[in-house]
This record gives sequence, structure tokens and C-alpha cells, in this order.
Amino acid sequence: MSTKKNYKNMDLSAYFIGPHGENGDLFKELAAKLTDDHIGWRKNYNAGDEDSISEDEKATPEFNNAVVNMKDVLNELSRKLRDGSIPWDTAGRYLSQMDNETLMPSILAYNFAMLWNGNGVAWAGSPASTLMEQEVGHQLAEMHGYDKNGWGYVATDGSIANVSALWMARNVASIPLAIKEVCPELVEGKTEWELLNMSVKEELDLLDQAGDKKNEVKAHSARSGKNLQKLGKWLVPSTMHYSWRKACDITGVGEDNLVVLPVDDHYRIDIDKLDKIIAENVEKHIPILGVVAVVGTTEEGQIDHVDKIVEMRNKWIKKGVNFYIHVDAAYGGYGRTVYLDEDNNFIPYDKLETKFKEYGIFTENNQFLKKNVYDAYKAMGEADSVTDDPHKMGYVPYDAGGLTIKDTRLKDTLTYYAPYAFQEGIAVPASIGQFTLEGSKSVGSAAAVWAANKILPLNISGYGRLVARTLYGARRIHDLFDGQKFEVDGHTIVSHVVYDPDFNMVDWVYKEEGNDSLKAMNDLTQAVMEYTTTAKGGKLYNMDIQLSDTSFEPDNYGDAPVKFIESLGMTADEYHKLGKLEVLRSSCMSPWMYDEDSVEYWSKEITAAIQDKLEKVARNENIL
Amino acid sequence: MSTKKNYKNMDLSAYFIGPHGENGDLFKELAAKLTDDHIGWRKNYNAGDEDSISEDEKATPEFNNAVVNMKDVLNELSRKLRDGSIPWDTAGRYLSQMDNETLMPSILAYNFAMLWNGNGVAWAGSPASTLMEQEVGHQLAEMHGYDKNGWGYVATDGSIANVSALWMARNVASIPLAIKEVCPELVEGKTEWELLNMSVKEELDLLDQAGDKKNEVKAHSARSGKNLQKLGKWLVPSTMHYSWRKACDITGVGEDNLVVLPVDDHYRIDIDKLDKIIAENVEKHIPILGVVAVVGTTEEGQIDHVDKIVEMRNKWIKKGVNFYIHVDAAYGGYGRTVYLDEDNNFIPYDKLETKFKEYGIFTENNQFLKKNVYDAYKAMGEADSVTDDPHKMGYVPYDAGGLTIKDTRLKDTLTYYAPYAFQEGIAVPASIGQFTLEGSKSVGSAAAVWAANKILPLNISGYGRLVARTLYGARRIHDLFDGQKFEVDGHTIVSHVVYDPDFNMVDWVYKEEGNDSLKAMNDLTQAVMEYTTTAKGGKLYNMDIQLSDTSFEPDNYGDAPVKFIESLGMTADEYHKLGKLEVLRSSCMSPWMYDEDSVEYWSKEITAAIQDKLEKVARNENIL
Repeated sequence: MSTKKNYKNMDLSAYFIGPHGENGDLFKELAAKLTDDHIGWRKNYNAGDEDSISEDEKATPEFNNAVVNMKDVLNELSRKLRDGSIPWDTAGRYLSQMDNETLMPSILAYNFAMLWNGNGVAWAGSPASTLMEQEVGHQLAEMHGYDKNGWGYVATDGSIANVSALWMARNVASIPLAIKEVCPELVEGKTEWELLNMSVKEELDLLDQAGDKKNEVKAHSARSGKNLQKLGKWLVPSTMHYSWRKACDITGVGEDNLVVLPVDDHYRIDIDKLDKIIAENVEKHIPILGVVAVVGTTEEGQIDHVDKIVEMRNKWIKKGVNFYIHVDAAYGGYGRTVYLDEDNNFIPYDKLETKFKEYGIFTENNQFLKKNVYDAYKAMGEADSVTDDPHKMGYVPYDAGGLTIKDTRLKDTLTYYAPYAFQEGIAVPASIGQFTLEGSKSVGSAAAVWAANKILPLNISGYGRLVARTLYGARRIHDLFDGQKFEVDGHTIVSHVVYDPDFNMVDWVYKEEGNDSLKAMNDLTQAVMEYTTTAKGGKLYNMDIQLSDTSFEPDNYGDAPVKFIESLGMTADEYHKLGKLEVLRSSCMSPWMYDEDSVEYWSKEITAAIQDKLEKVARNENIL
Repeated sequence: MSTKKNYKNMDLSAYFIGPHGENGDLFKELAAKLTDDHIGWRKNYNAGDEDSISEDEKATPEFNNAVVNMKDVLNELSRKLRDGSIPWDTAGRYLSQMDNETLMPSILAYNFAMLWNGNGVAWAGSPASTLMEQEVGHQLAEMHGYDKNGWGYVATDGSIANVSALWMARNVASIPLAIKEVCPELVEGKTEWELLNMSVKEELDLLDQAGDKKNEVKAHSARSGKNLQKLGKWLVPSTMHYSWRKACDITGVGEDNLVVLPVDDHYRIDIDKLDKIIAENVEKHIPILGVVAVVGTTEEGQIDHVDKIVEMRNKWIKKGVNFYIHVDAAYGGYGRTVYLDEDNNFIPYDKLETKFKEYGIFTENNQFLKKNVYDAYKAMGEADSVTDDPHKMGYVPYDAGGLTIKDTRLKDTLTYYAPYAFQEGIAVPASIGQFTLEGSKSVGSAAAVWAANKILPLNISGYGRLVARTLYGARRIHDLFDGQKFEVDGHTIVSHVVYDPDFNMVDWVYKEEGNDSLKAMNDLTQAVMEYTTTAKGGKLYNMDIQLSDTSFEPDNYGDAPVKFIESLGMTADEYHKLGKLEVLRSSCMSPWMYDEDSVEYWSKEITAAIQDKLEKVARNENIL
């Protein structure tokens, strides 16, 4: 019935509707078939039953009135969405947020599953999708390097996944203190400092040892409201997503315990400073609850040295200090698929180029093989948990976040139920909702991620090829923007890329040649941004290029941008006085800029659009 | 262009695909039209651009391989979902969980919006849907009796909404203590007890008075991690959804501060006991953080006396005690639409019957006009916040929960940003995500609820008629099951309804006539349940009736079921010894059992199916 698939010979372009709806007919054909499958299922369930809506009723004026009402509202909805949605549907004109086309099979799977309206919270509410979500959870865990002892699920989004990760980190860290209250014999002779510096494995082993008293121990854990302020500091880089502030707030860990880590001039956690911060806290006898490494920072796409943080933890363990490591890979997690072979093994560094050639990716040069990125991805399996967003680089529709954990027992710290609870007298083959913050769950998200992972395996044969397309495109955008010159009304404007990208995001600025004022550069960059959004008026649909911006401020970023600023002949002093470096920011997620031809075509279009915007700035703004 | 709509003359049956797919063709027609609308939008955005997928490429073997792969996976998905989904697609055979058909226009709106894959978290990510969500939030707030000062949004689900409500209640309650630290002059002379017993309005007024120091005050609020254990007790009835335990856990309020309130024999909060519990805490100088009233309990569909709880708060305020009131109306919230006239005014009690007649609902008798339910719904506008689930009685697909608040300022306690933040240099007309636990947001949910509310206004002209259909159906199921007799192998089995329903849920038991053992009744009821699920094997799709069960246990429910048990000739003693009353539980959400004919038809089918199950029990189980 089934044969082993040769993913190598499949054209990724078939999997999207396409920027101009090129595969629109295919989408409609597949959608109609699935809809028929569903309607047939309804029709044949107890087929002999009377229909609930007769043909007579359908012929009445009242029925027709309702149909007219429905059409009327749907037309209004269509007008609103066509008028007020972001036109990202282009191969090269949308260089802005992390948003783009999504996989056709995932849209179809989501819509199809929605027709059943099952509740994915429990096996009893949707057996099929619960099994799919369990499968997907294991796939995501394996993608990160977790073994069969790992576990994962499809969360609403990265924010909920991050919040849930801190919730687990908090609860598990409090277990030894709870053990001391309930089964003191298990931790006899241990000091409070020792109890607050155990590994996740040790903490979960203790919980297992509590046996019958497991639930009582959990009742004495952080969920009780006790000991929250004893657990220590939660360390997150300044490049963090804003959900980490929310996470510290809602979990009661408290923003007072959030420590913002400085980043280096590559916008990665400054490893030496991290070490120093840990040492300072240890000296004051304050525990480290955990450290968050970001894989794909929100504003830069940079990838923290997960490997060095893991190494540092090993060093601290020898000194009796231990902490949780979470990787926030909401943006960059899927990047790991590039480094996994067909059997999901991490490819040795010296075999990468051969493997890439075999799959026809990165054939032009090896600038993608950054060793620091490779090492960071390789070490992800050592972290205690990872946040992923299938609705970002998984090209799955919203909402589809993901949370995976290294030790499946960790999830039990969130619930009172036994992991394989019996429901309604029968053993449940899979259970998700009892371990999540979410209660009700669409079955659509699980189905969408499941279909995507089936069509594109989470390794070099599937997603790896897709992610590589965008890394290629981003590198070409980087090369285009790095030193690109424009002549505008007698001024020479040059664009400068801010850092060498680890992933598929590019940040850059516009500077007038000969004008070495940071303020002038910020103003010009900001003005370009305004003409590439609707800030200066106009309709979204009429734009020929869309960019987004961000700013690096000393309060948050410290001196990270200084090296770049100085390379342009400006001073750290001016940066500190002005209080910001304004940059344009592009997540190059488009899967359509993936070869010489497409890059050449879009480079011309992008250049023309920017030339036009610079001329508008020169004409309308008094800054050149 | 538009005329005032006469909703009265619209047949609700047009709004669903139908149990047997009766409106399947209409669904397909509308879906195809919307898909074309979207594809046309893609095609015409910078129409002159080169296509990204050529016809040549589409003709290659590689493209075809990918299409085959996609079809293969989608077929597998279809098989899995058809085989492993719950067949609720019936007018009368699914009498189980809160799950049923969803509104056709909402499915269409969700699917259509998904094609854009906008991120509803911010206006900049999806202008159209953000405005729609803002509109919907106000509609839901108005449905609960909040005025223009109210606010709401579409949450992932009821659990997240409940968690977020406690998060807000926690943060706002901590404001006076934070004020004391940052601007002590504003609370001069007040004791800590007084600071912990202010109304939400007073707390928010204080925050406003902090002026420039507002953010500093917020930084000293509960979000800092401080004072969490000072805020007092969170009181929730024993009929609560399990998300309240999760909420106390994750927010750091702590399960030690959760007080479970006893319910009376109607499964509503026992008002006298609530008063006593408050008094006991006050005596011990422990503040009451808040009280949760449930409108539509998960296992019984019962409706707490919101009016009496509001009244009680007013009484306590005079004694210097104040607390937050949250209404968890995830299940029953939409029931309020039955009592709202076309202008969303709450209909006077003595005008109800006339109004019902005008809209052709409850024409047979007036047993639906329970005064306690009317009074509870009427008082909802006095609560500080309300949880709703559009994906339950709103008949909108998952995920669509909802949270509404009485005082729009309350949401600012969750964020550092000003409510009308400027983004990218332009004023944002609407903003949702900065006030929610969720980060990324599907635009589908907002669009789906928006379309539903446009087609069915949230009053008697729209949703009220739909909800009334189910209240009618539930009452008829109640009447059918209350005292229904079956002759089975020489045994007479009688079903007994456990309480008089406030909403559309019915709980009942099966008892052998002459056998007054509670254990025997529990066993029989449990056995019937097992033959109406797949517990005894078989395929979901082959079932002719589906029921669900629950059990009332003394640990949780106290003596609530005793009156019922005694009415059947059994003793409280046996109930306490056995430790449970086993009941069948049916959420009668089907919109298809709404008139004499349909009730008559389905009553016969249901009766036959139950007779069959009782015979199977008699044949296979050794309990009769």
C-alpha cells in the first residue's frame, strides 16, 4: 500500500498557494475533495435518520432571507479583509514581520479538521487529533535532539509556551522544598541551598521517590503559593521577546526576579557577563532559577551560544550551583532541520557540505556553515525545554506554538492526575490537555502541524530544504543591502547591514555619504521606514515594498551596537546621548527567493522601490 | 446600500451545514466564492510581477511528485479524522459533551481569514481583524450588561480567560499596597486592611491619581512578585471548572488560598454558607480576594445566584469588606441573549412572555421563565469580569473563548504600555494583544465571532432564538427522562432526573424499580454509560446514541445530592459510605430538537437506543 518516499524529488513549490495564487486551482480542488469527504461522513452517520432540514424548508422565503443575510455579512467580511490585511503575498516585496505564506496542506488540514469541531483537550473529545498531537509532540522533541523520553505539544503560541515553560521550571524547582516538608527523610542532611540547586532530573527523581505521597508533595510545591520568592533569578537576554516579562508577572516569580542579560556585538548573550552575573548572585546566596537562551531573536534573528551556556552550567554544577535552561526557539527552532539527516541524526560538521550538495541547498558557497550556529543547534538537546512556533518557520497557520521538554515527567508537576489516567473506565491512549495551560483546543492546529510534518519531514529531506531557501534568500538580501548605493537628488545614500546574520533576518540602516551624524542616519532610516508602511498614508494594497523597523537603545542593548556605529565613523558618545540606533528589520521568510533568477529579478524590483522611497523622502522631508 | 434587517423572518436552519449535510451544497458554494475572493486578491497585488511558479514548473515530474505526496497525506488525514472523530453530527443521538455543529458562516469566516494568516496580536499585524475583535469585545461586554466603559477580547478559551481574570484581580488588588510604597500620600491614614478592601473602581482611581508614577506603581504591584500572599482568599464553588485550580497555581495566588464553596441541592452556591465563610475569614483578618459565580456549571449547567452575591457584597462593603466578583459564564453566558430586546435592553420580567411570543420561542408554556435564572442574568453587569466561550453556546469553531471586563482600565494592570500606544509613529486605532496572555493570535477566531454576531445579533432577535431552541430541546429531554420506564427482561427500569435544569443540561440516573440500593443504581447508570461510549468496544461511527457521565462525591459536593437520593428511598448514609452518586450528563446543545415534530421523532429514536443498551446491560453484565 505504501512505498518509501523520495522527498528529494519533490518540488517544494507545489506546497503553497503561491504569491499570485499560482496554485489556486489545486488548492480549490483539494479543498472541495476534503469537504466532500466530510459531508459524506455526516450524511452516512445513521443514514436512515430523518433529515433536519427538508427541501421544502429550503424553498421558503424565511430560509432564503437567512441565506441573503449570510451572503451579505460574508461579503462585508471579504471587503474588510481584502482592504485591511497585510499584503505579504509576494515573493520579494514583503520584507517585514515574521509572516508569510503558509503551507497549503496545513491550511487544508486545519479547515478540514475544523468541520468536526472536536475538542483536542482530551482523547475523549477528539481521539484522532489527540493521537496526531502526541505524534507531533514527539517529532518536535526529536527535532531538538530529545530522545524518546522527551515530550511536547502544540501550544497556542510562543508566549503561552514560554509562560508554561517558566511555570514548569518554577514548580519543579520547588519540589525539593516540598519534599522537605512532606518526606524530610528523602533529603536528610541537605541544606536549603543544596535543595535549591538540584538538576531537573534530580528533582523529578525525588518526586518519584515520594511514591504515594506524590500528590501531597505537589500540593506543597510552588502551586500552593509558598516559597515562590525563594527560587531565585530568571535570566533572559536583552534581546528577549516581551512575553518573558509577562511570564515573570503571571507566574508570581515576579519581575523583580527577572535579570536582563547583556548581549555582545553579535546580539548574542555575552557569555562572560552571564558567568559574572551568576557568580554575583551565588556570592549573595541567591539561587539561579534558570537561564533562557534565544534561538532566533525577535529583532535580529540571532542565535545565542546554547552550547556555551550548557558548558557553563556543567562548570557551575561542580561548584554546587544548578539551574534550568530553556531555549526560546519560537523563531529559529525549525532551523535545526537543516542539520539533521534523513534519520534525524545531527550531521557531523565535516559532512555538511556533501549533504547540502546531495539536497541541492547552499550550492554556491559555504558562508551558511557558521560554526557558532551549528554548535548552538547541536547543543539544544541539552536544554530542559524548548519553545517553538510552527506558525512561524513551520509555515503553519496561526495558532500553532509548541513546547517540548527533555524529561517527560516534568509535565506532571502541572497536574494532580496520574499521567495515564483512566477516564470513563477505559485507559486513554494519549492525553494532552491535562498538562497545558489551555483548556479547550482546536483540533485544527494539531492536524495542520501533523500534515506539514508528514509532507515535509523535520530534517534535511523536508523542512531543511524549505528553511534553506529562506537562509539563501536572506543571505542574498544581506549582500544586496550591504553597501548598496543610491543617487538621490545629488546625495549619495548608502545602506549598511548592522551584523552578520545567524538566521534569516537582516537589519540595516541608510546613511548619507559624508554625513557622519547618527541623528541624521536615524532620521533617514526612520523616514524610509515610514514610506514603506502606511505611516505616510495610502492603502496597504497599493504598496510596492513593505519594511519594518526597530531601535536599539542603550537602556536595553547597552553597547552592543557601538562597534557598528563606530565602523561608520560615529561615536559611542552620540549613541548614548541620542539614546538609540534606528534600524530597518526584515524577516526574509519568503520561500520564493531561492535561486539566481529569482534573486536577480527581485533585487531589481526591491532596489527600484527603495530608490522611489528615497526620492520621496528627499522631496517631502527636510532631512537630506 | 443597506436596509434595516428583519431578523425575525430569517430561518436559523440556513446557518448550519446540517446533521446530514443538508446545506452542504450551500456551504461549498459560499466557500468557493470566498476562496476566489482571496485568490483574486493575491493575483492582483502588484499584478505585473513575475509569477513565482510557472506553468512549465507545474508540468515537471518533481512538481507532480509533490502533489502526489500532498494528496497521499491528506487522504490519510481524512481517514484518520473520519475514523477517529466524535459523531455529534446528529440532531438527537449526541447527548453528551458541550460540542455540536458550529455556525456555517463562522466556519467560512475562520477559513477565509486563515488564508491571510495575519497576526491578530496587533493592529500592525492585521488591521481588519483587530478592528473586528474590538467590535466583538464590545458586543460581548454589552451582552453581559456592561456599558461603554466595558471591554473584551476573544481569548483562546475559557481556561485562559479564567486565568487572565484571576491575573487581573490579583494585580488590581495589589495596587493600593503598591501605592503605599510609591505614593504614600495618596493613601495616608489608611490601614493595610482598608487597602486590601477597596473596590476595583477605587483601586483604578488610585492608579490614575498616581499620574507620572503610574508605571512605577505597576512595577511595585503583584507583578513584582511581592505581596502575593497578602491578597487573601479566592472563593469558587465546588461545581467549578478545573481551570480554577490551574489559575490559582500559575498566578502564584496559590492553591492554599483557593476556598471551595459548598453548593445547595440545586447545585448553586449556598448563599448562607458563602456569607459564613466570608465572615470567618474577616474575623481572622484574612481578606477576600474574590468570589467566582458560575453561570452554567460544567457538570450540571446550573446558574449561581449572581444577584444574591452582588447583594451580599453590598452588605459587606458597609462593614469595610470588599472583594472582586468574577462570573465564569463559559457555558451559559450566551443565555443572557434570551432576555435582551432588539436594542440590547434587559426585558422586564412581566414583558418576557409577550416578547417570547413575538419571536415564536417558548410558546407552549412558561416553565422556562425561572425567576432565579432571570435575576442571575440580570445582575451579571455588576460583576467585575465575565468569562464566555463563543466556541460553546456561540456555536463558533474552536478556539474562541472570551473575557470581558466592566472597567476598561482594568486591563492596564497587565501592561506597561499606555492604552493608546503609538506604534511606528502612528496612532493605533485598536490594540488587543498588549492586554492578553496570548502573544500571536489567529485572525480566524475574531472573524468567526464577528461574522456570527453580525448574522445573529446578541439579543432575542438573533442568538436568543438559537439558545431558546436548545432550552426547549433540553426541557423536552428532561420531560422524557423524568420517570421514563423501560421493561427489560422482567425488570422495570426507571430514569430519574437529578435536578430541575437552569440551562440546557440534564443529569439523570437509571434505577431498577423496587431495588433501593444506591450501589445498584450507580452500577446500572455506569453500565448504561459504558454502552453509550466506546468503553465496551466498537467504533464511534457505529453508535446510535452517545452519552457522558459524571459523579457527585461527598468530598467535593457535600450533601448537595442527598435530597435527590432520599427522594428515591435511599439514605445519605449509603451515599457517604459509597462515596459517590453516578449520573448521566447531557449537554443538549443540538439546535435540531426545537419543535413538536422533531421532539417526537427523536424521543422515539432515543428511547429505542436506550432500550437496546439496557437490554445489552441485562444480557452482558451481572447487575440486574
